[in-house]
Amino acid sequence: MRAYDLIRKKRDGGILSPAELRFLVRGATTGEVADEQLAAFLMAVFFRGLDLREELPHWLDAMLRSGDMLDLSRIPGRKVDKHSTGGVGDKISIPLAPLAAVCGVRVPMISGRGLGHTGGTLDKLESIPGFRVDLSTQRFTELVERLGLCLIGQTAQIAPADRKLYALRDATATVESIPLIASSILSKKLAEGIDALVLDVKVGKGAFMKTRDQARVLARTMVDLCRAVGRDCVALLTSMDAPLGSAVGNAVEVRESIDVLRGRGPADVRELTLRLGVEMLRSGGVGEGDAARARLEAALADGTALRRFAELIDAQGGDARVLDDPARLPQPRCKWILQADRSGVVSSIDAELVGRAAVELGAGRSRKEDTVDPAAGLLLLKRIGDPIRAGEPMAELHAANESRLQAGEARFRAAVAIGEAPPAPPPLVLERVA
Amino acid sequence: MRAYDLIRKKRDGGILSPAELRFLVRGATTGEVADEQLAAFLMAVFFRGLDLREELPHWLDAMLRSGDMLDLSRIPGRKVDKHSTGGVGDKISIPLAPLAAVCGVRVPMISGRGLGHTGGTLDKLESIPGFRVDLSTQRFTELVERLGLCLIGQTAQIAPADRKLYALRDATATVESIPLIASSILSKKLAEGIDALVLDVKVGKGAFMKTRDQARVLARTMVDLCRAVGRDCVALLTSMDAPLGSAVGNAVEVRESIDVLRGRGPADVRELTLRLGVEMLRSGGVGEGDAARARLEAALADGTALRRFAELIDAQGGDARVLDDPARLPQPRCKWILQADRSGVVSSIDAELVGRAAVELGAGRSRKEDTVDPAAGLLLLKRIGDPIRAGEPMAELHAANESRLQAGEARFRAAVAIGEAPPAPPPLVLERVA
Repeated sequence: MRAYDLIRKKRDGGILSPAELRFLVRGATTGEVADEQLAAFLMAVFFRGLDLREELPHWLDAMLRSGDMLDLSRIPGRKVDKHSTGGVGDKISIPLAPLAAVCGVRVPMISGRGLGHTGGTLDKLESIPGFRVDLSTQRFTELVERLGLCLIGQTAQIAPADRKLYALRDATATVESIPLIASSILSKKLAEGIDALVLDVKVGKGAFMKTRDQARVLARTMVDLCRAVGRDCVALLTSMDAPLGSAVGNAVEVRESIDVLRGRGPADVRELTLRLGVEMLRSGGVGEGDAARARLEAALADGTALRRFAELIDAQGGDARVLDDPARLPQPRCKWILQADRSGVVSSIDAELVGRAAVELGAGRSRKEDTVDPAAGLLLLKRIGDPIRAGEPMAELHAANESRLQAGEARFRAAVAIGEAPPAPPPLVLERVA
Repeated sequence: MRAYDLIRKKRDGGILSPAELRFLVRGATTGEVADEQLAAFLMAVFFRGLDLREELPHWLDAMLRSGDMLDLSRIPGRKVDKHSTGGVGDKISIPLAPLAAVCGVRVPMISGRGLGHTGGTLDKLESIPGFRVDLSTQRFTELVERLGLCLIGQTAQIAPADRKLYALRDATATVESIPLIASSILSKKLAEGIDALVLDVKVGKGAFMKTRDQARVLARTMVDLCRAVGRDCVALLTSMDAPLGSAVGNAVEVRESIDVLRGRGPADVRELTLRLGVEMLRSGGVGEGDAARARLEAALADGTALRRFAELIDAQGGDARVLDDPARLPQPRCKWILQADRSGVVSSIDAELVGRAAVELGAGRSRKEDTVDPAAGLLLLKRIGDPIRAGEPMAELHAANESRLQAGEARFRAAVAIGEAPPAPPPLVLERVA
């Protein structure tokens, strides 16, 4: 088998056989297929796609098999994870994982880091002093069994083919391909040994998918692909035109997550946590509909979810006292209060620009190599629909120094529009794909 | 400027600026743009093309400037070359170059080697004992001035960007792109310092372009591109369903070329030499139409073209006695006469299969690294339209050993069809694109 012939076949719109797809994925992993050949293949896939029934399941399977797959079968109960395609202020995994766990779902969660204007769960968790995300798979399995959840980062052994292919895609403008996005995400998530996956596909200005149509195609592809390889999957399309919640950053988002676990927090963060929670309970076979929602609400109200989070922090080496004493979270050297320069009603807050403001403040990464400042970030003091007067505080910016605050302010001001009349309230969940 | 952005722009159907195209070609030459990025760009070009007016002239110009360009301006008269897109039995350059030269055209010809089922002028010339194709550019210029022609191979200094990009295209199934083919050919040809180019675009079973429509698009692209960079160009679309002439190989094709230079030889080889010769004389500003043709015919009839070829062989280190004593050309160790297995009329001879038979005999290369056997090849004893009886000799195969003869025979027999009635005579020149 020659890579040349396979590139040519895809270039001309052909369907590759399972053996041919395995050859390419194995060649990517071992280095036996040259980078330039993989790059040409990926660009041909950008134009020609991968067939959802005949190619994509085999491609995904080969990527899964390129590395280790966790076997959680000895743990009783269904294992369910949630994955978000990435947004601004999207801290949902942090309250959701312990909440679903106390309701009886096993949540083995392998998360990623922030890149560009979107944040990452690992960076947020690491703002808790001592919290470690690099546990062994043995310890991971043990915590999923004992606490019902564990939150770690990807290891070198999980889906090495994806790491190789993703780096190539990132260099060759072939990231934006639905079949490649779907198989990349699932190659990592399914290696966790889960039975089902709940997807939060973000749509809008701050999301990877700018239109609802694109997002629906991605959701449909991922749901069908999951089923083709024997896993349950459901996707919610949710709005990412504006940031989720009031906090954008790392420590600030942990703090907001704690608020939600106390039964408080911003309405949108709480609501999306509950909506995704209902899907996790249903996928986990422990409840459906209103009953599931009531169970989740009770676990927030009575503090059981918060206590589980405390146990998790403790088990992963972190200082669980941050739950009662948020001052133990990293504090910024500098804070600025931004004031509105006109009166009116907040009519829009552009999620992507707010995300870029957070990067300028030090909370995110422009490049993979950058380090994040756990204390940097921002708090929205006014949200869409809120009336505001000129000179009234609009947001609080946190950073290590004034030059970062200045850069963040410039970005942030461009993100917020103040109009005359309140806009139509933005929808949270746009649709459900199952 | 980042290669990533340029790949993305082309991927999305954009038009790259001259500076952006230069950046990529320079990056290919220096290695500053990674192979995987170039490969992805080339595949994007396969799908999106390069704009004939806004991109291709700048892309070609950058490729030309990646290396040395000969300056033949001190030699009086117009410098004209001929290029064929490659065929089987296509030895036209060998009689044509000295013929055009004696009629007053300057012919600085840089040729290629055979690959796959198509032969190469350099391999054929090297079957003349002592003939050297690796002359210095100084010696090349000197011979163009003194003899009106010189035939050499590409040097490392000519269009290094094309060498790099062609190797990548060859590995990544991006050869078959009209703008990339056109710019690759012209980047080498125009570096010769020519004023005009006569193109022989082959069409049919043994050609790179299988259909007349494809060939016309390539011809149109090359003619327009040549003009855009200030050179004259005319293209003939000529048939390559069957081999050209009777001889396919190296020494055998030199022998057939000598026949043509003696005013004899197969009618199709002589006719195409004259047709392309008329175009060269017109492009060279030394004659047109019937007068040009008469001048060419006279130079074949009176032996002046043959004598010029003798002088060229001598000047390039070869043994010019081969012209009068063809036994001095390499002789095969084994010869087989193939007999027809049925009676009828030769209805078709598939050029590609005959070319592959010649490769099996040792006359060509399956891979670039292969060496060619100058004595190997075949002679068609019957051509299309000839009546034949079962048991009558059909072809003569030349090779170094019996196993090569066997392999060649198998391929050759598949190439020839014997029918009941004579087919319509195949056209030689299909159309002219100017």
